[in-house]
Amino acid sequence: MDVIKSLDNKKIKKLSKLLLKKEREKEKLFLVEGRHLVEEANKCGVLIEVIKTEDYDFESAIPTTLVTYDVIKKLTNSVTPQKIIGVVKYLEEQEIGDKILILDNIQDPGNLGTIIRSSVAFNVESIVLSRDTVDIYNDKVLRSSEGMIFHINIIKRDLESFLEELHTKKYKIYGTKVDGGTKIKDLNIDTNKIAIIMGNEAKGINENLLKKCDDFLYIPMNKKCESLNVGVAASIILYELF
Amino acid sequence: MDVIKSLDNKKIKKLSKLLLKKEREKEKLFLVEGRHLVEEANKCGVLIEVIKTEDYDFESAIPTTLVTYDVIKKLTNSVTPQKIIGVVKYLEEQEIGDKILILDNIQDPGNLGTIIRSSVAFNVESIVLSRDTVDIYNDKVLRSSEGMIFHINIIKRDLESFLEELHTKKYKIYGTKVDGGTKIKDLNIDTNKIAIIMGNEAKGINENLLKKCDDFLYIPMNKKCESLNVGVAASIILYELF
Repeated sequence: MDVIKSLDNKKIKKLSKLLLKKEREKEKLFLVEGRHLVEEANKCGVLIEVIKTEDYDFESAIPTTLVTYDVIKKLTNSVTPQKIIGVVKYLEEQEIGDKILILDNIQDPGNLGTIIRSSVAFNVESIVLSRDTVDIYNDKVLRSSEGMIFHINIIKRDLESFLEELHTKKYKIYGTKVDGGTKIKDLNIDTNKIAIIMGNEAKGINENLLKKCDDFLYIPMNKKCESLNVGVAASIILYELF
Repeated sequence: MDVIKSLDNKKIKKLSKLLLKKEREKEKLFLVEGRHLVEEANKCGVLIEVIKTEDYDFESAIPTTLVTYDVIKKLTNSVTPQKIIGVVKYLEEQEIGDKILILDNIQDPGNLGTIIRSSVAFNVESIVLSRDTVDIYNDKVLRSSEGMIFHINIIKRDLESFLEELHTKKYKIYGTKVDGGTKIKDLNIDTNKIAIIMGNEAKGINENLLKKCDDFLYIPMNKKCESLNVGVAASIILYELF
């Protein structure tokens, strides 16, 4: 098989554009780097092509293109990437299920990745992102999610109207605050249909969404600490409730 | 007061070297960027000098040096820093107390910062770092700790001998694993003197330390997820136990 060596190769140029959100949205494709993410994508049936160096050992039935390490580097923002890249289809929407985590304007890719990972660990069925939350196909999100993005339904919605929809479907909606509301250990849940909202790293949950919550949850902590990292707070709440 | 404009100014050159761990260790000084961290350092009585631009509003009794924004940029790795830098004394060791978190070779600065923040939130008295754990005075650690570094005793030790010392002092030492051991919700603690060990992001806890644990803890989770982020796992355990 031929090995693509040129950074100006038409195919490589096209693929490298998938590092940009705009291009991803258009093509409904994204790139993942490294064996673990490529394998997770493959298990999920969304891997459509493998790009790897000649010497990198990876067996699959997926169409494979051989390239040089310089070409690999053009397809990722990592400084010292692994020698394999996967081209992956956008994930399809599924039913939202009963246990829902709603994220309002989370900005840090590491935080979003961590929350996705913990959501799978603690049996969340769907993560619902506000339109201004960081893109899930951002490479830092993918890396910090440790491939868990392939094991959970993640959708994007206008949150105000989505919360109204949840109300009509009899979900109980819990907002989260640094204090005020119910201590998570004291919470008595009388329904299976639960939605929890976590807000932006600096500003918390948007005012308009706060008004639509049925109750608020908080994690008790030492007064010296103003707040927890949002990935940590989300994980503790999911651990405790789900 | 004179404003230092030159990046070659002797004082500025000397201070900028504090961005390097080696120089910090020698001088027992470190730099913090931004109002929040400078204020936290000041509250703790370890702030020895303020470096700021002429137009930046900050009142304190601490000796202050005025500089240009270009000089500020030389004193931090941030791309768009706030216009204030603090020169801060290394924190002094205190008594270790009863509730101890031990970190074995944590490498990611964001993870260490998050763990420091959660440790203050959940009343840890001392964090004990292995000698190969990332430096607490690293700017990314400081930023993600949200200034909580000033509210907790953090010390560095050879962990093998430190665990032996804890045993002789009748501490109960808990290791953490992805599974195996006691579910954290089922743990009955019959002592106040507790030490919890968290291990490296990829490799977990070193073999030699595992042998010295009295028991092991784990967080139950969905099989689809291999492990949690170490900052999240540490935080959940601290939340549950302390």
